[in-house]
Amino acid sequence: MSHLDLGPGPEFDRIRSIEKALGPRAGELGDDCALVLVGDEFIALSIDLSVEGVHFRREWLSLEEIGWKAAAGALSDLAAEAARPEGLLASVGVPKAGDPGEVANSMRGVGEAAASVGGRVLGGDLSSAPVLTIDIAVVGRTARPVRRQGAQVGDGIWVTGELGGARAALASWSAGETPITTARRSFAHPVPRIGAGLWLAERGAHALIDLSDGLAGDAGHLAAASRVMIELALDRVPLHGAVPAAALKTSQLPAVFAALGGEGYELLVAMPRQFTSADAGALEREMGIPLTLIGRVSAGSGAVCRLQGREVALTGFDHFA
Amino acid sequence: MSHLDLGPGPEFDRIRSIEKALGPRAGELGDDCALVLVGDEFIALSIDLSVEGVHFRREWLSLEEIGWKAAAGALSDLAAEAARPEGLLASVGVPKAGDPGEVANSMRGVGEAAASVGGRVLGGDLSSAPVLTIDIAVVGRTARPVRRQGAQVGDGIWVTGELGGARAALASWSAGETPITTARRSFAHPVPRIGAGLWLAERGAHALIDLSDGLAGDAGHLAAASRVMIELALDRVPLHGAVPAAALKTSQLPAVFAALGGEGYELLVAMPRQFTSADAGALEREMGIPLTLIGRVSAGSGAVCRLQGREVALTGFDHFA
Repeated sequence: MSHLDLGPGPEFDRIRSIEKALGPRAGELGDDCALVLVGDEFIALSIDLSVEGVHFRREWLSLEEIGWKAAAGALSDLAAEAARPEGLLASVGVPKAGDPGEVANSMRGVGEAAASVGGRVLGGDLSSAPVLTIDIAVVGRTARPVRRQGAQVGDGIWVTGELGGARAALASWSAGETPITTARRSFAHPVPRIGAGLWLAERGAHALIDLSDGLAGDAGHLAAASRVMIELALDRVPLHGAVPAAALKTSQLPAVFAALGGEGYELLVAMPRQFTSADAGALEREMGIPLTLIGRVSAGSGAVCRLQGREVALTGFDHFA
Repeated sequence: MSHLDLGPGPEFDRIRSIEKALGPRAGELGDDCALVLVGDEFIALSIDLSVEGVHFRREWLSLEEIGWKAAAGALSDLAAEAARPEGLLASVGVPKAGDPGEVANSMRGVGEAAASVGGRVLGGDLSSAPVLTIDIAVVGRTARPVRRQGAQVGDGIWVTGELGGARAALASWSAGETPITTARRSFAHPVPRIGAGLWLAERGAHALIDLSDGLAGDAGHLAAASRVMIELALDRVPLHGAVPAAALKTSQLPAVFAALGGEGYELLVAMPRQFTSADAGALEREMGIPLTLIGRVSAGSGAVCRLQGREVALTGFDHFA
């Protein structure tokens, strides 16, 4: 239940109804990962379902890319917990009439994503299904998990990488065009920010989440879990190079376009106020990942986005809207 | 990859192609659970995909039963590893146009199955999908896992419970009839044999597997993993009460009908030769679960089924045949 904590809309209605139906049979839901304490460390677990026609289309991505993207999206939940990946389990459903090679090709992408962060494919299941369906359960370990709760008034809100590339690619495909290479790569080949998650945890991160539903929605989750207000200055959001042109076509301002885009799997983190831009520069030098201050934590509730000082209302993606 | 070790047919061809595609990016696949050593115990993990129209039909089962069956089938892999359940993660895909209550109702069944063995729902994911799709990742702990490998020449081969009930229910539905209550229950409400798995491990079980593909196929997996031959006397197989009538309609002998039926989730176990029927009686007294000697381990390879002393050839279920 990676989106369990708030928000209006049919998807959250369904999730709330699950919570109600489960009652005490549910663990502590609502963070990026579930945690199980074993000895003196935590096992971090998360699961992520990718369905053809919902999360991807075969016209857009190769089977390897479909597998990579499904696995990378799940592994991103470990990054958002500051956990070190052990590996993953993959359930794959494929049409009975499909090419027998499509399972192996999509699993090759899954395996590559796991290997890219030091993990392995630990197990899986295989079934026929009406459309290509990949469900990934990830397993990691951490002695010091960083949760969504924990953001404190005065913290800075930082984001890794650049936002909006995946949405720019989606916008191109939807318009019947070919996305530019770097935007296509953001969508097809997201990189789970495992190293950055661990780096931020070591430097005292108070709260961490990955951007899967869009900056505005996910900042709202962080605010709700931490019982604080998060104020974002959209002017500061680092934009992917494809954003300005893509935003123009939607008549949205570039920063709004980027803030509404999901699936980039960058990390949004609340760092103690002592953490400076000079500190952030070390992450870029060490790992090549920019880290940008885009907001702050204050008393209150919800996520407030401002552009040139004026508040703008934004909402994330809803599977059932 | 709960069926990774052997057998002909399109399903195993696909699984072998996955193994080849993954190469060193895969862990040690091919047992009921993956194991991750943490401190001085193992975390046992498995994943199990259930798809509407493949594993169940809504005309046959309530949504709660669909959820229960999906979760129980996955939890059965923990039983087959002699692991104690910690909980599970559930991915649910439902048609966008469906009743919003169907997610909560199927998750209620998932939660009940988890709670029935002392586990909890630790997390999950939700998406739209063309048909109801439930993928369950289970998490357990064990200091002494029992693998499929380990059966030794001279061991007795024992089975819990009675076989063929789930297949009898399926046969009734397929013929447009209503299954008798106890057979329907075998299919709709399988009980993961967690307690029996732990009990058998404590008494020195050499090798353990759960029956998901059918006795003949799963005995073959155990034989392959242990590099032995398993000889089964089908005459000894304990039959569910619905089997004789159901078998008659298929022109199969009752024991053959039962041995070919999958999804009963009983345990098949290789016990040291010192383990006797008197010992087995204690399991029935303590947990109400019969344990029956149905074969033995000898030198060689493969599973051999005999009926009245004559060899009969049987094969399990193939998702892609």
